[in-house]
Amino acid sequence: MIRSGTASLLSIDDVRAAAARLEGVVHRTPVMTSRTLDERVGARVFAKAESFQRSGSFKFRGAYNSVAILDDEERGAGVVAYSSGNHGQALALAASLFGIAATIVMPDDAPSIKRAAVEGYGAKVVTYDRYRENREEIGATLSAEKNAVLIPPFDHRPVMAGQGTATLELLDSSGPIDTLVVPVGGGGLISGSATAAKDAGDVRVIGVEPEAGDDARRSLATGEIVVIETPRTIADGQQTTSVGEETFAVMQERVDEILTVSDDEICDAMVFAFERAKIVLEPSGATGLAAILRGSIPGDRIGVILSGGNVDARRFAELTGLGSAPR
Amino acid sequence: MIRSGTASLLSIDDVRAAAARLEGVVHRTPVMTSRTLDERVGARVFAKAESFQRSGSFKFRGAYNSVAILDDEERGAGVVAYSSGNHGQALALAASLFGIAATIVMPDDAPSIKRAAVEGYGAKVVTYDRYRENREEIGATLSAEKNAVLIPPFDHRPVMAGQGTATLELLDSSGPIDTLVVPVGGGGLISGSATAAKDAGDVRVIGVEPEAGDDARRSLATGEIVVIETPRTIADGQQTTSVGEETFAVMQERVDEILTVSDDEICDAMVFAFERAKIVLEPSGATGLAAILRGSIPGDRIGVILSGGNVDARRFAELTGLGSAPR
Repeated sequence: MIRSGTASLLSIDDVRAAAARLEGVVHRTPVMTSRTLDERVGARVFAKAESFQRSGSFKFRGAYNSVAILDDEERGAGVVAYSSGNHGQALALAASLFGIAATIVMPDDAPSIKRAAVEGYGAKVVTYDRYRENREEIGATLSAEKNAVLIPPFDHRPVMAGQGTATLELLDSSGPIDTLVVPVGGGGLISGSATAAKDAGDVRVIGVEPEAGDDARRSLATGEIVVIETPRTIADGQQTTSVGEETFAVMQERVDEILTVSDDEICDAMVFAFERAKIVLEPSGATGLAAILRGSIPGDRIGVILSGGNVDARRFAELTGLGSAPR
Repeated sequence: MIRSGTASLLSIDDVRAAAARLEGVVHRTPVMTSRTLDERVGARVFAKAESFQRSGSFKFRGAYNSVAILDDEERGAGVVAYSSGNHGQALALAASLFGIAATIVMPDDAPSIKRAAVEGYGAKVVTYDRYRENREEIGATLSAEKNAVLIPPFDHRPVMAGQGTATLELLDSSGPIDTLVVPVGGGGLISGSATAAKDAGDVRVIGVEPEAGDDARRSLATGEIVVIETPRTIADGQQTTSVGEETFAVMQERVDEILTVSDDEICDAMVFAFERAKIVLEPSGATGLAAILRGSIPGDRIGVILSGGNVDARRFAELTGLGSAPR
């Protein structure tokens, strides 16, 4: 497994180097604006719609960058990830683009649609019993057996650097902003984003967590990584139990504040995005927008990462509580 | 009311002149592509997402063009439309951009969200009883009383010309195509689109209607305008009872074929757009995609107009029959 030292923090040069590797491969996703939204919050909002990114979320950036930095021999042995969600899909796609093998470890009760998506990219799925087996151990064992490279979902410098490239693109389109709003799970997206934003100027960086899983907020407040039980929230992309060591170190330096939003507020933001912007956001993809809609974000020019759109129509209808009468 | 003669057909010059008037005012909406879709249908598909157009549909193009060609005196008296749907919203927005008055005539049982949208653009709403009153008469009376200009929803050359500009943009992005697929209601969109497509080259133009309202198909087949009862279909943007005289004349010359799709096929296309492309389409906006997904469209390079995205989240959930458990 490739692992950078933790002595020095992720740098803007890491993010820029990732951007060069991703050039022509990632979608340069649109930065959307809405007069309705601006009038409602009294600020100009620039929303980077990573829901339109390849594989449906920003995770493709970090996954691709992580595969791109491997040498031919390392790549030849394939890559491994444990993830039932967007990181798994993203790594499966990245591996397919390099023509190498990918094995994704996911719980045996993962939604069949997610398994199908990973297999659709040609990756192999290995399942485990989430109540009796440990996915990290399975991933490590697989990695050791095959000599394959394990790509962690967030606490890995090439992943963090890749995720930061979305903010480079955002700033390039929006021009200067006062505040950047970013969803926080394990901290991969926000550590890369904050690194890009702080380099660009005097930008306040605000992370947003689901109320039920406010470990990052508490970690920053206490100065130590707080570990929680898997939080009960609809924001399945943020059901992490703690931030990582490397991501936390960056967050301590470059993140100004962490806010939380309720599941109800997340649903309202998903509906707002649907009806006003005509775009589909998964719950985690809407947490930053939820904080903005509540009026919690200061600044005249606000950037926000809408991090993903991987939610099926049935779950969207269930979450928003709007569907009842079958046609 | 401004009305061009019907002796000569809508021309490519009309469409180009409209494009010049719309420059910098309309959103140049994205032309989306999807590997999944291409693999499924065995062709390259270029989808012009007019769901992202101002006011949520292509209707803004024709409405704005119709207001733009008026002289100051005509504009000063304001504009009138009878429409409970996208044309009403579009004209309300166009009028507000010119700082003139707009009156939109809609049935008293129109959804409150549509009424709110029109009023949100600053237009006045006049309601009527759809079972006892005639909207054309009300519109004509209002127009005569105030000397305001009535802007018809489709059978009006400036409207047809404006709608055609979406295809100019599509072709500019896609390059040459073999087939263009366009939803048909009253024929405003397809007459403008076909005019632009046939000028560009040897493009087969295929219209798509909901199964229950196949009056355009029958009209082209018989050579005479067929008038039907208001069709029972979820595609509310295509619940017209007949095409117009001017639009029909253009369609006879430049439309090769009309296909129909069922409401179930429309729903499937809405869900496909949601889950794969992460975009919101209203039922009428998805009819072209539905025909493509069914495999009914010939050609290696297919263009399609996704005509609008004005559907609220509740109705989307009801239509797709997917929501049941309230959160």
